[in-house]
Amino acid sequence: MAFLLRPETMNGGTASNGLHLNGQDSLVQPLLTDFYQISMTYSYWRSQIHNEPAVFDLFFRKNPFQGEFTIFAGLEDCLRFVENFKFSVSDIDFLRTLLPGVEEDFFEYLKEMDCSAVTIHAITEGSVVFPKVPLLSVSGPLAICQLLETTLLNLVNYSSLVATNAARFRLAAGPKTNLLEFGLRRAQGPNGGLAASKYCYIGGFDGTSNVLAGKLFGIPVKGTQAHSFICSFSAEKDLRVREFKTKDGKMIDLYALAMKKRDDIMDKLFWGVSSSEVSEGELCAFVAYAIAFPNGFLALIDTYDVLRSGVLNFIAVCLALSECGYRPIGCRIDSGDLSYLSKEIRARLRNVAELDESLSWLAKVTIVASNDINEETIISLNEQKHEIDSFGVGTHLVTCQKQPALGCVYKLVAIANEAKIKLSQEVAKISIPGRKMCYRIYGRSGSSILDILLLHDEKPPEAGHQILCRHPFEESKRALVLPSRVEPLHKLFWGDGKIQYDLPTLADIRTHVRVELDRLRNDHKRQLNPTPYKVSVSERLYNFLHSIWLQNAPIGQLD
Amino acid sequence: MAFLLRPETMNGGTASNGLHLNGQDSLVQPLLTDFYQISMTYSYWRSQIHNEPAVFDLFFRKNPFQGEFTIFAGLEDCLRFVENFKFSVSDIDFLRTLLPGVEEDFFEYLKEMDCSAVTIHAITEGSVVFPKVPLLSVSGPLAICQLLETTLLNLVNYSSLVATNAARFRLAAGPKTNLLEFGLRRAQGPNGGLAASKYCYIGGFDGTSNVLAGKLFGIPVKGTQAHSFICSFSAEKDLRVREFKTKDGKMIDLYALAMKKRDDIMDKLFWGVSSSEVSEGELCAFVAYAIAFPNGFLALIDTYDVLRSGVLNFIAVCLALSECGYRPIGCRIDSGDLSYLSKEIRARLRNVAELDESLSWLAKVTIVASNDINEETIISLNEQKHEIDSFGVGTHLVTCQKQPALGCVYKLVAIANEAKIKLSQEVAKISIPGRKMCYRIYGRSGSSILDILLLHDEKPPEAGHQILCRHPFEESKRALVLPSRVEPLHKLFWGDGKIQYDLPTLADIRTHVRVELDRLRNDHKRQLNPTPYKVSVSERLYNFLHSIWLQNAPIGQLD
Repeated sequence: MAFLLRPETMNGGTASNGLHLNGQDSLVQPLLTDFYQISMTYSYWRSQIHNEPAVFDLFFRKNPFQGEFTIFAGLEDCLRFVENFKFSVSDIDFLRTLLPGVEEDFFEYLKEMDCSAVTIHAITEGSVVFPKVPLLSVSGPLAICQLLETTLLNLVNYSSLVATNAARFRLAAGPKTNLLEFGLRRAQGPNGGLAASKYCYIGGFDGTSNVLAGKLFGIPVKGTQAHSFICSFSAEKDLRVREFKTKDGKMIDLYALAMKKRDDIMDKLFWGVSSSEVSEGELCAFVAYAIAFPNGFLALIDTYDVLRSGVLNFIAVCLALSECGYRPIGCRIDSGDLSYLSKEIRARLRNVAELDESLSWLAKVTIVASNDINEETIISLNEQKHEIDSFGVGTHLVTCQKQPALGCVYKLVAIANEAKIKLSQEVAKISIPGRKMCYRIYGRSGSSILDILLLHDEKPPEAGHQILCRHPFEESKRALVLPSRVEPLHKLFWGDGKIQYDLPTLADIRTHVRVELDRLRNDHKRQLNPTPYKVSVSERLYNFLHSIWLQNAPIGQLD
Repeated sequence: MAFLLRPETMNGGTASNGLHLNGQDSLVQPLLTDFYQISMTYSYWRSQIHNEPAVFDLFFRKNPFQGEFTIFAGLEDCLRFVENFKFSVSDIDFLRTLLPGVEEDFFEYLKEMDCSAVTIHAITEGSVVFPKVPLLSVSGPLAICQLLETTLLNLVNYSSLVATNAARFRLAAGPKTNLLEFGLRRAQGPNGGLAASKYCYIGGFDGTSNVLAGKLFGIPVKGTQAHSFICSFSAEKDLRVREFKTKDGKMIDLYALAMKKRDDIMDKLFWGVSSSEVSEGELCAFVAYAIAFPNGFLALIDTYDVLRSGVLNFIAVCLALSECGYRPIGCRIDSGDLSYLSKEIRARLRNVAELDESLSWLAKVTIVASNDINEETIISLNEQKHEIDSFGVGTHLVTCQKQPALGCVYKLVAIANEAKIKLSQEVAKISIPGRKMCYRIYGRSGSSILDILLLHDEKPPEAGHQILCRHPFEESKRALVLPSRVEPLHKLFWGDGKIQYDLPTLADIRTHVRVELDRLRNDHKRQLNPTPYKVSVSERLYNFLHSIWLQNAPIGQLD
C-alpha cells in the first residue's frame, strides 16, 4: 500500500487551517512547475542576477463567464506552498538529469533555497476582485520569485474560477435555495474533484456529495440514492426486510402500510393513473431506503415515470413513515422538464396535504433537482416559477463549462528598483509597471465605487478627501471621487519567512464572499450585460506607466 | 511540514508501473466518493441484498469533441484503487458522524470490506473505444460494486477525455510535428495538471513542461524561457557575465561576438529594420541564456517585435554560438499571426543560411509556436502552410475547452442473474442489459469494421464465419459481416483479489494508442463530419434487449 498516502495522521476531523491542504498537497512542491522556470533560474544564476530584487504581480485580465466580477481563492494554498518550499534530494537528482552540463554549484544553490527572503502582499481570500489588480504581489530575489510562478498560478487559477462559478450559481438561485455540489465524477481527477468541492463551498454552495471533502474540509456532505438502487428492486420478493420499528417502538410491516397508503390515495384522488403503471420495484426500493433511513427519507422518483409512478410511491412511503412517527425529507428528480415536474409534484403533495390537517407538512417537503444544471437553467427555471428547493449541480459547475480557465498571469513589474512593463500590440495585455498598492473606494451608499492602484510609496487615499482616478490607458477617462470609506486591499501575508496572519477557516472565507458580494452593486453582478467595475490608477501611476511605456516601445519605421 | 506528503520514498526515478500513481494517489481512497454510494450501501445491507451478485457497466454515450472515437485511459488507476480499497479507522469514524442511527454492525461490515470478491473485465488501456461498449464491466457483491462507482468514473472520465483530446491534436498536427503540453498553470489544481501531463503523453504528445510529471512518470520534460526572463535584461549593463568558453576551450566575449554577427547581417541583408528598433535587452537575455545553455539554445523572440528585433537577435546569437562550436536549437513565438510569422522567420533564416554553405543548418532550426492553440488553429495553420516544427499547447488541451466532460456512466445491468435495464424517454440513454462481451471485427483491408456486443455466454464470432450484426435500437438496421479477424475487447484485469496482468508502461500505452488509431479508418477520424463507427449487437442480444425493454416499460394509458 506504499503509494496510497492517506491523510490519516493529520486529520483532526473538522475544518481548520492545518487541515485545508491535507493530502491534497502531497503534490504541491517545487517541481510542480514548468521546466522553463528551472532553466531560467539557472540562467539568472549563471548571469549573477539571481539575487536582484524583483517584483512579480499575479493578476488576470478579464472576468470569467462574461461577468464583471471574480472571487479570489487559493491564497492559503499559495502560502502553504511558499512556507514549505524546499527542493528534496531526489528533486535535485532529477533536475541533474534534465540539465546536463550545468555547474554543480547551482544545485547547491537550489538545495539551500527557501522563501525566507520573499515577501507576499495579497488580497484577502474570498474577496471580490477585478482585472489588472494584483491578487498577489511577490517580491524578493529574482530567481526565487520566478520559480514560484507556475505553482502559484496553478493554485489560484482554478480555485478562483470555480469559486466564481459557484458564486454565480448562488446569485442566480437566490439566498434561500439549497445548492449542492455533485461534480466529483466529472472533475479533473481526484484532486480536481476535491478542489471543486472546497472552492464551490467558499463560493456559496451549501454542501457536497464528496465524502472525502467532508472529512478533510468539514464541508456538509449530502446525497441519497441513484437509479441503480431503485433498479435493484424488481418486485415484492426482492424486499427481504419489511419489518420496521416505529418511533414508539412497535414493529410493523412498512411495505404493507405503504401499499395501503398508496391505495387510499389512488382511491381518493384521481390523477389519471392506473395501478398497473405504478412500479412495484420502485415502491420496494423506497421502503428499503426508508427502513434504513427513517429520519433521512429522500427518494429519487424519476426512474420509471415521475407523475405516473414515482410521486405516488413517494407519497405512499411518506404517509407510512409519518404514521410511524418519522418526518420524511423529500424527493429528487434527475430528468425531464424540471420546472413542470416540480410544479406537478408540488400540486400533488398539496392535494394530499389538503386531505387532512395533520398532513400539512407534506406540502412543504423538499424537492431536489439535478441533471445538467447550469446558471442559465436556474435563471430560466426561476422565470417559470419552479417549486424546487434544492439543486444538485455537477458537470457545469466543476468543469466551468462556459469558460474552463481563468487565465491568471504572473508578470515581472520591477527589477533592481527599475520598473518593468510587458508590452503587447493589444493594449489590454499591457501590464502596469512598478510595485503598487490597491485601494477600494466606497461611496455614501455603502457600495464600492471603484478600485484604484497607486505606486507603493504614494500616500493612500483617505475618506473625505477627493481623489482623481484615471483610466490606465484612456487619457480622457478620469473622474474625481470622494470616498466615504477607503479599504486597503493588499496586506502582507508572507514575510520574515512566515505566514503573517492566522488564516481564516473555510467557513470564514465563505462568509467573506457573501459580505463582499453584498457590497457590490447589483448592476455589476447581473447576468445579462453587467456594468464593468472600474479599476483606475492614480495620477502619478498614470504618468509613470505612460513614461515607462514610451521608454520601452520601439519607434517604428515606415518604408 | 506534515501536510507536504512527498513521493520521495517510492520514487525510483523512471516510469514504471509502481510509480504511475505515486503521490497522486494519496486521494484515491474509498471516501473519494459520493455520499449516496455510502447511504445506498447501508440500505442494501439493511435490506440484506448487499451480497447479491451484480454486474455494472461503465461506458459513455457519445464521443467527445464532435468526433467519432474516444481513447480509453485511466485503467491502471482504477485497478490500483480496487487493489487498495480499504476503509481506514478514521474513515469509519467519519462515516459514523454522517450516519447517525445506523446499526454498528454495518461499520464492522465496512471495516472488513475489500475487493477480493470483485471481478473486472475491461478494455486494454489506450484502446480506441466507442459509445455503449462497456469500458469496464464490474461484477461481484452488489454493495461493493456500487461503492466503486464514483471513484472509477472520476478516474476514467477525465483521463479518457484528455487523452482523446491529445490524440485529436496529434491527428491534426500529423505524425512529424512535435507536440508539447504546457497546461499546468491552467489545470484543475495540482493533480489536474499531473493527470493532464500523463494522459496527453499517452494520447500522443511528445513532452510536457511539468517537471513533476517528468519525475513521477518519466515523460520527457521541455521548456525554455518566459517573457519575464527577456524583460529582466534592459541593456548591456545588465549582462554581468559575457565570457564564454568555446567548444575547444577558448574564452571569448559572447555578447561582443553576437553584436558583430548582428551588424554583419544587417549590413548584408536589408530587412527594412534600423538598428534603433532592435532591442538591446533582448540580445543580452539571449546571450545570457546561450551562456547558460550553449547546447540548448532556444530563444523566445516575440517580447518586443518578432521581425524587427527578435529574429535578428536570435540569428546573431545562433551565428555566434555556431562559431564557438555549438549548434542552436531554435526559437519560440507566443503571439501574433503564427503562420505568417513562422514563414517570415523561416525566410530570414534561409536568407542568412544562403550567405555561406557552412550555415545551411540555420535554415532548419526549430520554430516552436504557442499561444491559445487548439485543434482548429492547427488545421488552419496547416492550410496556410506554416513553418512551425513544434507546438506548445496549454489551456485548450488540459481543460478540454471544447467539451470539458466525457460523461461516463456506471449502470446496473444485472442482479441476482436477472438482467436490468435503465429506461429513459431518450432511446440514446437506454442501457443494454445483461453481462456482455465485446468483439472488434476487422475486414480484409486491416481496418476495423465494427464492434459487436454479445451476451457473455454466446459463442464468440470467428474469422471467416459470417455474422449478423444488428443496430441495438433500430430494427431495420442490420448487416451480415464476414470478419477477417476478430479481436476480443474485454479481458479479465481484476479477479481473485489481484491484478491479472503485468500492466504496460506509459510508453507502451502510448504506442498502443498510435497502433489503434492507425487501424481506424480515416473517415472515422477526420475532423469535419466524421462517419460514426458502428457498435452493433448480436441477434440474440438484440432479442434479449428488446424483451427486457418491453417487460420493463410501463404500458401508458391515454385519457
